[in-house]
Amino acid sequence: MSALDAPIIVASNRGPVTFERDDSGELSPRRGSGGLVTALVGALQASRGLWVAAAMSEGDREVVARDGRGLVDMEAYGWPYRVRYLDIPPVTYDAYYNGILWFVHHYLWDTVRSPSFDDDTVRAWGEYVEVNRTFAQALAEEGDQQRSQPVFLIQDYHLSLVPRFLRELRPDALIAHFSHTSFAGATYMRTLPGTIREGIIRGLLGADVLGFHSQAWAENFMMSARPLQGVRADLARSRILVEGREVLVRIHPISIDVGPMREASASSEVRELRKNLNRWRGNTRLVVRVDRFELTKNIARGFRAFGLFLRRHPEWQERVRFLALLSPSRTEVPEYRAYAEECMAEADAVNREFGHQGWEPIEVRVKDDHAGAIAAYGLYDVLLVNPIYDGMNLVAMEGPVLNRRHGVLVLSRNAGAYWRLGRYALPVNPFDLGEMADGIATALDMPADERARRARGLSRLVLSNPPQRWVGAQLDDLERVRRRRVVVHVS
Amino acid sequence: MSALDAPIIVASNRGPVTFERDDSGELSPRRGSGGLVTALVGALQASRGLWVAAAMSEGDREVVARDGRGLVDMEAYGWPYRVRYLDIPPVTYDAYYNGILWFVHHYLWDTVRSPSFDDDTVRAWGEYVEVNRTFAQALAEEGDQQRSQPVFLIQDYHLSLVPRFLRELRPDALIAHFSHTSFAGATYMRTLPGTIREGIIRGLLGADVLGFHSQAWAENFMMSARPLQGVRADLARSRILVEGREVLVRIHPISIDVGPMREASASSEVRELRKNLNRWRGNTRLVVRVDRFELTKNIARGFRAFGLFLRRHPEWQERVRFLALLSPSRTEVPEYRAYAEECMAEADAVNREFGHQGWEPIEVRVKDDHAGAIAAYGLYDVLLVNPIYDGMNLVAMEGPVLNRRHGVLVLSRNAGAYWRLGRYALPVNPFDLGEMADGIATALDMPADERARRARGLSRLVLSNPPQRWVGAQLDDLERVRRRRVVVHVS
Repeated sequence: MSALDAPIIVASNRGPVTFERDDSGELSPRRGSGGLVTALVGALQASRGLWVAAAMSEGDREVVARDGRGLVDMEAYGWPYRVRYLDIPPVTYDAYYNGILWFVHHYLWDTVRSPSFDDDTVRAWGEYVEVNRTFAQALAEEGDQQRSQPVFLIQDYHLSLVPRFLRELRPDALIAHFSHTSFAGATYMRTLPGTIREGIIRGLLGADVLGFHSQAWAENFMMSARPLQGVRADLARSRILVEGREVLVRIHPISIDVGPMREASASSEVRELRKNLNRWRGNTRLVVRVDRFELTKNIARGFRAFGLFLRRHPEWQERVRFLALLSPSRTEVPEYRAYAEECMAEADAVNREFGHQGWEPIEVRVKDDHAGAIAAYGLYDVLLVNPIYDGMNLVAMEGPVLNRRHGVLVLSRNAGAYWRLGRYALPVNPFDLGEMADGIATALDMPADERARRARGLSRLVLSNPPQRWVGAQLDDLERVRRRRVVVHVS
Repeated sequence: MSALDAPIIVASNRGPVTFERDDSGELSPRRGSGGLVTALVGALQASRGLWVAAAMSEGDREVVARDGRGLVDMEAYGWPYRVRYLDIPPVTYDAYYNGILWFVHHYLWDTVRSPSFDDDTVRAWGEYVEVNRTFAQALAEEGDQQRSQPVFLIQDYHLSLVPRFLRELRPDALIAHFSHTSFAGATYMRTLPGTIREGIIRGLLGADVLGFHSQAWAENFMMSARPLQGVRADLARSRILVEGREVLVRIHPISIDVGPMREASASSEVRELRKNLNRWRGNTRLVVRVDRFELTKNIARGFRAFGLFLRRHPEWQERVRFLALLSPSRTEVPEYRAYAEECMAEADAVNREFGHQGWEPIEVRVKDDHAGAIAAYGLYDVLLVNPIYDGMNLVAMEGPVLNRRHGVLVLSRNAGAYWRLGRYALPVNPFDLGEMADGIATALDMPADERARRARGLSRLVLSNPPQRWVGAQLDDLERVRRRRVVVHVS
């Protein structure tokens, strides 16, 4: 039996479905979207596997209350896999999720002033450790119930410690961990208290395979691990030796699930939205951005760069509009509210400087609007994706497969997506207003055949990498680990 | 002839002396202090060498005006070496000195908001390139006038491009560059526009030997160079292959010139100051910090940490005082003024929370006061050196050689000095208020024999590494390069 047919156990903070009460008062599952869920659920269904996640909704908590263990057989809903919810107190959940890790991996500190670690940090870290331990214990329990050696696929920075805790409970387990965020460099990781930094790195090193979306993040991880006692990082062969074990460090860029997006794009709702958007744009060109209102997304600099573009290229005034579709994010955090206000002020400043009756350069729409985004993807001439740091960035993939105008992707070199799509995008430094302004101009002035060539290239790259391949590559890695272990045992 | 006897040509932004008009109206040189000047002047004198620097004072500019070339034979003042001043316009000087490089190497950006590179950046970079080219041309000219192959010792981040420009003019030159600042990691270096980042790295790679104060900065440089086309970075052997040349990357921590400091400490002025300070402290213990009012020095967090220490360890209230001796720095820059105000507000907050008549926990003295610092070094029980990032930090060396109370050094792990002195200091994470607070408590509670052991260790490490050794190590490296080249030519 190979790792590929083994029963798979997935762990992630957010599960593949969320239970909510429907109109009849019954608890029913709402399925999450995106490539990650599609890929992992596909693999789970093939092996009748299990997905362990934190309870998110009140409905999820009711599911836990029902049998104590939180186990749901999704067979009842037509899907041959199971989900187990862990009842983690919301406060804990918030402390570890919105806590320090997101900030450090995305270089978000204002180092002269933040971070300042204190007792609250110690408490948040303690809770993070607890949550990770809870996950590891649940995974070990579920692993024990499988007839054959299970395969664990642990997701993201919320669960960095799970590989190590799980390894302690099941030394023979086959464990992969995947980081969906960027990973900070060695010096920047040292902003963290030593216990936390070393805890996270040694936590991850409990895995057999560590996955990242781009080489930059993989290298940063290896350089952070390198100085730790008893760790040998072999950069050339992309592996780490620790405690007599070998940990493979691998780059597997995830992609998106194109099918449902194309279906949505063909729906009457989106067709109507596209019609409205086309009326609204008139005969101007269209620059689009689609993002959560998130510190990492570089929204304010995007508006300033657009202003600089209009200043440097006055011939484009009145002939182009910038549509920003922004969904609210972490509005309970003061830093996020302040940032959202700054972004709106930047857009206003550009509109005041260049706009006049009949032409407002920037329009910002703040709401959760999936259909609106799908419609805008169809119509952009330029898609601006300029995060300061981003593990991957799926907007850079969604746009090109739905766009109908051979629109140009202006892409930050600090998005993981750049590693895969860079050669067909116009790359920009997200801190360089001049380069972003010129990127927009170059995109708008690009000859049609060059635009077409790049648009086709982007679309091809996305389509040639279905989400199943991402999970398959990780299972292949684990299979290689399993075979090597057998050899070692035999010899 | 070995590199050690070759005529040495030093280049640095600031020269070893500054010319000022004395009371009689004559231009006369004022010698700079510190280990760097001592070490390099020592080496220059041995070889009757030359130091090339930017004119700083009006007096320096007059020297340049006198003969156009700006050459001064210091023999006239009793020192057997020469200085050549380059007349660089002050505006240019400011743009490249206070510009972006200091910020990037010390991780000072508030990445969500700064930097935002634009036309001003392009202009500042252009001026930086010009200044570096001016230096390289002057160095090549001077080199051509030497009878034998000269040795160039280029100093610091102001002159990152000089090695390459000089190499183009003198392909056979023996060139060492030393970075006195920290060096940013590969991902953080990518905040810079590509031209600037690559320009700096390739500029440095023009040297034969690149020196850093600590392994962290050397590794960061190598990882930043690694992805560049045509560059092969060999981390294990700490060298880089580029354009058929080998560049050695070396760690040579500089030290201080102890003699003059001990003399100053024994002067009647400092004796008097010590007496006053002793009266002022009464029977309390004394925590001291000595710093420029600089964003990197972490002064505000130091005060907050002291507040946390008093909260966690109320038994120390009224029994300890914190004396901060801060010299003004870059007061023309708004960010620096704002930071200075924030620091004063933090000190005030601690004094309001804990102070009362007869006991004010923190005293801040803001002025240039070398004698006052020497006096305070003699008397501290705890010396707090907690920069967020610092190439080396000489306060961490000056204190221990002058202290008379077996005072304890609480030292940031992000100071280059930590690499050399760490084992005898109490190491702290400069972002961790809790660890700094506990560091102060541990230092104050430390048994006398343990304090003595550490104080002796620190003093011994500093004394065993005179500044001459720092320059000697670099000349040894260059001698090795020279010998290898000869072998290559013969074979």
